[in-house]
Amino acid sequence: MRILIRGAAVIRRPEEGVIPKADVAIEGRRYAAVVEGGGIEGGFDRVIDGEGKLLIPGLVNAHTHLAMTLFRGFADDLPLMSWLEDRIWPAEKELTAQDVYWFSLLGLGEMIRSGTTAFADMYFFMEEVAAAVEEAGLRALLSYGIIAPTPAQAESELKRAEGFVRGWDGRAEGRIRAALSPHAPYTCGPEVWKEAAALAKELRVPIHTHLAETKEEVDRFVAEHGKTPALWLEELGVFAVPVIAAHCVHLSEKDMEILAAHSASAVHCPSSNAKLACGIAPVAELLSLGVNVALGTDGAGSAGDLDMMEEMRLAALFAKLKAGDPEALPAPQALAVATWRGAQALGQGKEWGTIEEGRRADGVLVSLKGAHLCPGHSPISDLVYAAHASDVVGVFVDGRPLLLDGELLTLDEEAVKAKCRELARRFR
Amino acid sequence: MRILIRGAAVIRRPEEGVIPKADVAIEGRRYAAVVEGGGIEGGFDRVIDGEGKLLIPGLVNAHTHLAMTLFRGFADDLPLMSWLEDRIWPAEKELTAQDVYWFSLLGLGEMIRSGTTAFADMYFFMEEVAAAVEEAGLRALLSYGIIAPTPAQAESELKRAEGFVRGWDGRAEGRIRAALSPHAPYTCGPEVWKEAAALAKELRVPIHTHLAETKEEVDRFVAEHGKTPALWLEELGVFAVPVIAAHCVHLSEKDMEILAAHSASAVHCPSSNAKLACGIAPVAELLSLGVNVALGTDGAGSAGDLDMMEEMRLAALFAKLKAGDPEALPAPQALAVATWRGAQALGQGKEWGTIEEGRRADGVLVSLKGAHLCPGHSPISDLVYAAHASDVVGVFVDGRPLLLDGELLTLDEEAVKAKCRELARRFR
Repeated sequence: MRILIRGAAVIRRPEEGVIPKADVAIEGRRYAAVVEGGGIEGGFDRVIDGEGKLLIPGLVNAHTHLAMTLFRGFADDLPLMSWLEDRIWPAEKELTAQDVYWFSLLGLGEMIRSGTTAFADMYFFMEEVAAAVEEAGLRALLSYGIIAPTPAQAESELKRAEGFVRGWDGRAEGRIRAALSPHAPYTCGPEVWKEAAALAKELRVPIHTHLAETKEEVDRFVAEHGKTPALWLEELGVFAVPVIAAHCVHLSEKDMEILAAHSASAVHCPSSNAKLACGIAPVAELLSLGVNVALGTDGAGSAGDLDMMEEMRLAALFAKLKAGDPEALPAPQALAVATWRGAQALGQGKEWGTIEEGRRADGVLVSLKGAHLCPGHSPISDLVYAAHASDVVGVFVDGRPLLLDGELLTLDEEAVKAKCRELARRFR
Repeated sequence: MRILIRGAAVIRRPEEGVIPKADVAIEGRRYAAVVEGGGIEGGFDRVIDGEGKLLIPGLVNAHTHLAMTLFRGFADDLPLMSWLEDRIWPAEKELTAQDVYWFSLLGLGEMIRSGTTAFADMYFFMEEVAAAVEEAGLRALLSYGIIAPTPAQAESELKRAEGFVRGWDGRAEGRIRAALSPHAPYTCGPEVWKEAAALAKELRVPIHTHLAETKEEVDRFVAEHGKTPALWLEELGVFAVPVIAAHCVHLSEKDMEILAAHSASAVHCPSSNAKLACGIAPVAELLSLGVNVALGTDGAGSAGDLDMMEEMRLAALFAKLKAGDPEALPAPQALAVATWRGAQALGQGKEWGTIEEGRRADGVLVSLKGAHLCPGHSPISDLVYAAHASDVVGVFVDGRPLLLDGELLTLDEEAVKAKCRELARRFR
C-alpha cells in the first residue's frame, strides 16, 4: 500500500524541531519520502489530509503490564505492600488466559487511541498477549515475568520464558520481538539471573526487568547483599546483554555509571512512581551521564491508564521538580524520551523511532485544532504541555493505519469493552 | 427551564461516594431533586440520558489568568525570571482590551470543555474578561491585579480595582462576583495592603492574591522584612477579610497556622508550580491543619492549559510524592479539592459546589464509556486517575447547559479560535 500524508506539520526527530508543512509518502512498511513544503504527486492508494495536524514518530511505552487494565481503579490510594499483597497478588491468582487476552486487547485499543505504536510488556499468559498484539497491529517486545526467589522454581520458570521466546520472537511479520524477564533482583536468585543472561545471549534477546523502584526495596537489598541491586547484577554479568531497567527511581551515582557503561536503558514511569509514592527517577541526571532513558506507563493497575501523551507531560514536569530547574527536560527532549529513545531501549533504534526515509513507517497524527492548543505558538510545546490522547487522530505501524478519523481499524472496541466488563465482575 | 438527567451515576459530594444510578431534576437555577434508583417522571423541558455517565459537581478553577491563553507555548522551559522579564512582561505591555476579550473567550471554551463551571481570575482589562464571562455563562470571581511596589502607584491602582468591583460585583444574574487583588506581598507595599483590606471589608469582597510561590521570593522577603509574607500580611490585618492565597508552595508551619486561624484558602496549582520548578505545595499537611485547599491551573502561559481534570489528577499524584505516602489525597479528597473546596475558597460554599436539593445547579456529566475507563471498578478512581477533558459531555451552570453532546452552546468556538490565531501573530 502507498499512502500520502499531505501538508501536515512534521517532527522527523524531536531535536530537529518542527517542519511547518511537508508531504510524507509511505510505501509498504517504510517511509519513502518527506518533502518540506509539499508537492509529492500521484499514484497513492490513500491520501490523508494533514492540514491542521502534526505528524510525530509513534510513542513507545517501554514498560507496562498490559493486561492489568483489569485492575484499573481496583485498589487505589493504598500503600504499595498492601496494594500488592492484599489486593493485586490474590486477584492475579484468579487470572485466566481468557482474562489476559481480552484485557490485553482493551489496553491495546487504549494505547492506539493515545498514540502508542510500540511497547514492552512483561506479564503472565504471554501467548495470549502476543495473539492480541498480532491482531491489533502494534509493535511489541514481550516477555514472561520470571519470579523465582529459590532455585527450586528456577528451572520451570526459565523454561517457560524460553519457550515463549522461541515460539514468538520475530512473529507477526517481525512486529513481535521477545525478551527475557527475571522480574527483579529481589524476586529472582543469582542462579536465575546468570542463566537468564546466558540464555539471552544465546537467543539474542534483551533482558527487561524492574530496578530500584522503591527506597525500601533497595535498602533491604543492600542490607542483605552488601551492595546495590545494579552492582549485584553487574557482578553477575547480566549487563553483558542489553538491559531494559524499569523505574530506576533510587539509583546511586555508581549505579547510573553502571547503566551508562553497559548501554543499558532506564525506563521512567512517572504516573506509577508518583501514585505509589515511590519518588521521581533522576531523568535529567541519567541523560547527562549518557544513559538512554525511555518512558513507560507501568500497568494500569498502578498508573490508572496507559496514556503516553500524559506520561510525556509528567516526565517534563517531574524532571523540573526533581532538578529544581525549569530548563530540565524541555519539550523536545521529553518527546525524544517518548519516541526514539524508547525504540533504542527496545533494541530496535536503527529500524524505527523517527520519521526518516527507509525507516519503518510508525507514526502518529495529532490534531492541532482544539481550543486547548490555540493559538499555536509552538506545536512541540503544545504537544507536550497541552495535548491529550483525544487529539490523536491517526496512528500507523509498519505503514498500516490502526486509527483514522477517530476510528480503531483493527479492533472491535465495543465488543472488547463489553467482554471486559463482564470478565471483571468476578473480581469485585 | 426544567431539566431531568435520567439514570446517571451521581457524586453529590465526593466524601459520600458514588450513587450508582439516580434521576436528577433541575428547576430553573437550582437542583430540585436527586432520587436514588431513579423514577422521576413528567413535565420536563429537556430530558438528558445519563446512562453510562457520571454526574459530578462542577470543577472550580480557583486561580487563573484567563487571557494568558495568548501565551500558551509562547516561552516554555525557561527559568521563572527570564520567562517573566524577557518574555511575558514585555509581551503584556503590548496587550490590548481586544486581545484580553478574545483570549478570555478562548480560555472559557477550553474550561467548559474540561468541566470547569466556576473560576477565580486576576488580570488586566477585567471589564473585557467580565463581558466574556457574561457571554459564556460560567460563574467567576474576577479581580484587577494591583501591582504597586511604591506609594505613588497605589492610588490609581486601587481606584481601578475598586471601580471594577463597583461596576461588576453581582452582575450576570449573580454569576459574576468581584474581588480585590493586590498581586503579591513582594509587588505591593504595606499601604496598598492596608487600604485593600479596608476596601474589601467595606465592599464585602474577598482578597485574591499570590503567596509564597517560589523559595527565592520568600527568602528575599524574609531577608528584607524579617518575617514571612504570611506573617507580614497578618500583622497588616489583611486576614480580617477572606483571603484566597494562590500557590502556597513555601509556607512555614506558622504560616499554615495563620491561614487556618483566619479561614483563608490556599490554592494549589500543580502544573504551573512543576513547570516553573517552584516545588509542590504541602496540600495534605494544609488540609490536616484545617486549611481549606482549592485547586487552580494558573495561567496557560505557565501551565500550558486550563484543564482541571488534569490538575485534579496531578494534585492526587503530587500529594503522594510530597508526603511519601500513597494514601495522601485519595481520589475523593482530590475531587473535593477540585469542587466544593473551590466554592468555599470563592466565598460561595453555601450556594453551590455540591449536588444537593436547593443549591445552584452547576454540574458536569462525564462519559464513562471510553476504553481508558473500562472495566469501571470505581468511577471515582477512574475519574481522578484516568479520565480526560474529552470525557466531559455535559456542563451546566445555574441550570443552563453550556455544553451538551460535545457541543459548546454559548460560544462560536471556530470564530474564537480563528480570531485568536490572527491576534497572536503579532506576538511572535
